[in-house]
Amino acid sequence: MTDCIFCKIVNGEIKTTLIYEDDKVLAFNDIDPQAPVHILVIPKEHISSINNINENNHEIVGYIYSIISKLAKEKGIADKGYRIVSNCGQEGGQTVDHLHFHLLGGRNLQWPPG
Amino acid sequence: MTDCIFCKIVNGEIKTTLIYEDDKVLAFNDIDPQAPVHILVIPKEHISSINNINENNHEIVGYIYSIISKLAKEKGIADKGYRIVSNCGQEGGQTVDHLHFHLLGGRNLQWPPG
Repeated sequence: MTDCIFCKIVNGEIKTTLIYEDDKVLAFNDIDPQAPVHILVIPKEHISSINNINENNHEIVGYIYSIISKLAKEKGIADKGYRIVSNCGQEGGQTVDHLHFHLLGGRNLQWPPG
Repeated sequence: MTDCIFCKIVNGEIKTTLIYEDDKVLAFNDIDPQAPVHILVIPKEHISSINNINENNHEIVGYIYSIISKLAKEKGIADKGYRIVSNCGQEGGQTVDHLHFHLLGGRNLQWPPG
């Protein structure tokens, strides 16, 4: 997707400090952090939202959770705890139309979750 | 897990109105809803938290997201949008030690997510 900001990060057109990269996934800090640890994890493949997740392509989501589980341990928030949030559409608060997962930790996350 | 409340729902010891069930997954309404639609989706298998998700067992998470995507369409919130939240540990706000995913929709979800 030529005008997707996350695709531009994937292809190197926009520079950011990567926290993690492999052939399927990227992780980097949110530019407007809402917690001491606030990382975005995205698939390299352009999938616009959870509405496009189905029985044929869901594997990437579980894979991303396995990466998030590792990152939480590396960032020292696994024991105290953290929250994973994925927004879909306008009422969900999705601001970039490329599937992404927020990993938030380092403080007490409140309830309700927004 | 004999004293896990979600395992008791899975094995029928605690009754609840199921929204969805298959061989791997259950979905039911949160007893303390934070939005007009507030559904919990859980794996039938007892996995205590995201900390226990790894390269060998992550498949269930993607599968749950594919079910959530379907449920959002069925509940009429797919177009307007929704949020998926998973809490891990105390600072994340996890209150039942059985992996679960909150699907929230039907109102504007705020930011930060708790």
